[in-house]
Amino acid sequence: MRIRGKSCRTLWETPDATGLEVIDQRLLPHRFETRILTTTEQTAQAIQEMIVRGAPLIGAVAGYGVYFAVNAAESHWDWDSVARNAAEQLAAARPTAVNLRWAVEQMVARIAAAPASEKRTAALTTARAIVAGELDRSRRIGEQGAQLIQAIAARKGGPVNILTHCNAGWLATVDYGTATAPVYAAHDAGVPVHVWVDETRPRNQGASLTAFELGEHGVPHTVIADNAGGHLMQQGQVDLVIVGADRVAANGDTANKIGTYLKALAARDCGVPFYVALPSSTFDWSLADGAGIPIENRSADEVRFIDGLGPDGPVRVRLVPETSPAANPAFDVTPARLVTAFITEDGVLPPNRIRPATSV
Amino acid sequence: MRIRGKSCRTLWETPDATGLEVIDQRLLPHRFETRILTTTEQTAQAIQEMIVRGAPLIGAVAGYGVYFAVNAAESHWDWDSVARNAAEQLAAARPTAVNLRWAVEQMVARIAAAPASEKRTAALTTARAIVAGELDRSRRIGEQGAQLIQAIAARKGGPVNILTHCNAGWLATVDYGTATAPVYAAHDAGVPVHVWVDETRPRNQGASLTAFELGEHGVPHTVIADNAGGHLMQQGQVDLVIVGADRVAANGDTANKIGTYLKALAARDCGVPFYVALPSSTFDWSLADGAGIPIENRSADEVRFIDGLGPDGPVRVRLVPETSPAANPAFDVTPARLVTAFITEDGVLPPNRIRPATSV
Repeated sequence: MRIRGKSCRTLWETPDATGLEVIDQRLLPHRFETRILTTTEQTAQAIQEMIVRGAPLIGAVAGYGVYFAVNAAESHWDWDSVARNAAEQLAAARPTAVNLRWAVEQMVARIAAAPASEKRTAALTTARAIVAGELDRSRRIGEQGAQLIQAIAARKGGPVNILTHCNAGWLATVDYGTATAPVYAAHDAGVPVHVWVDETRPRNQGASLTAFELGEHGVPHTVIADNAGGHLMQQGQVDLVIVGADRVAANGDTANKIGTYLKALAARDCGVPFYVALPSSTFDWSLADGAGIPIENRSADEVRFIDGLGPDGPVRVRLVPETSPAANPAFDVTPARLVTAFITEDGVLPPNRIRPATSV
Repeated sequence: MRIRGKSCRTLWETPDATGLEVIDQRLLPHRFETRILTTTEQTAQAIQEMIVRGAPLIGAVAGYGVYFAVNAAESHWDWDSVARNAAEQLAAARPTAVNLRWAVEQMVARIAAAPASEKRTAALTTARAIVAGELDRSRRIGEQGAQLIQAIAARKGGPVNILTHCNAGWLATVDYGTATAPVYAAHDAGVPVHVWVDETRPRNQGASLTAFELGEHGVPHTVIADNAGGHLMQQGQVDLVIVGADRVAANGDTANKIGTYLKALAARDCGVPFYVALPSSTFDWSLADGAGIPIENRSADEVRFIDGLGPDGPVRVRLVPETSPAANPAFDVTPARLVTAFITEDGVLPPNRIRPATSV
């Protein structure tokens, strides 16, 4: 996608392939800065602290986190256990997104399968394959979802109003995004679109990331409080909802950013189609339903404080009384019954038609 | 209620009754300051700029706004038109809350009914009667609602978890609050309660006002992002929801702070009772249903910026990219079908049992 008119992805290797350069997403939208990761520890920390975030992106970055461990290993070490240890460390950084575990397991398996002399090469090749795979899936999700938007545009005339929650945008992936991929594809194809961007408290990924990337790419959008989406749907101002997902159980129950469930309820109540866009790596076939999805509780200070741009630069301000506690469940589970369909790289599938596939 | 251990209301007359002292609620929770209003213009401005807010409180304050106009009128003026003009000016300050219009219409009627020599006295007496009436209704709402909380406490044991949205607290009324009145009454009677306080973006009335007043009064509470309530209900962590209202149509459709509709949907989906606490002055019997309730669109900058306490004191920070637009509908309408019952000063009534009463 475009940043200041230039084409950009969310990660790229350093010239000698010993490091991975990523955008420090905590500083957006007010500052655009990058960081270079060169160790497993730095990678796990970048995931934990949400320097990088978004289920597909942290999977792609974590692949490199395993590669760094193998690349740093002395030849007399047990490289397979080095890879396994790195994988465990990385997987523990964020518990909810399944892509992270999926990616590091791919790394471990491919490294184990390679002969000793080729383990470093196998690690780098697999990390690159995960990135290429995510990129391809985002592009195909965009193609699939754009058809839904085009169909609405053909029917109604005028801009198609899409509501999205959090950032399942290109910043959450390698490029294009998941929930935004259909939006970009439709926009780039000349279909008139307008995006209602949920602010997405407490970390404001919508207001700071989705608004930023849509604005940089030139897509018309309006930021709203998370509270406003239901009212807009009641007023007929939303044609469809598209969100991403952090983990989807085999029955279609969908874990995504806290508050997604509320938008799904409103969509159902107002007759607005509710789509979840995701690469197939986000399905967790080992879970029968959403009850088994672990929900990350993050720091209460993410609710008590907020970062913004003050008169003298970026500043963190406190929002609540000094003695008031806060709670911060980071995800919720939207029951499959509220999901119209999943927009995957392989097609648009209602919950009762999703099936395990065999792709990397 | 208590502030720093001392008993306090949200408004009080200056000693000579030519002014009304109010808490500048825009500065809470970080600073506690008061302002003295002495003219209709100042009063309308205080309502418009949300120095005072909350449907019952702005009605009570607006009564004094009409009184100030009459009190300032020369004896050869037409005092009835002075009162009517003041009433129009005040009613226009906030379009959604019906109490405001109700209060100024009371003022105009009582002033018109008084002989010329007693119009000033009638204005002051009526303004005081509106305050006393709101106070009495809040107290009675508390008594009615506390019984619901006590019943749950008797059944489940352990603290009763109440979720509330925005501030329908004592800061929104003369004292006790509407949605919080049952909470305070139960707490003061020794019933264990815990309140989930919705932050309530974009103006954060929950995080800044409800958390403040519950904390000052010693009521256990936890601030949550507006996005979190649905998840907490799914997890069985909410026993009942109590919200306030800005205007309720004759069929029970309820206009309240934006986002209320989403919580009502989640409550219905999770089998959690959803109550609206309100004085009878909040019913608008002239409206058959919620479609006729005007929804105030407030400044986009309330979404784009937020006020908090920085390292060097209160500061306003920008949250969104400089070029991203925002929209800010301030209320939504919760359909009566999602309301379990209304907690009024006269009892707990399901939507199909509300009826016009004759009270001031």
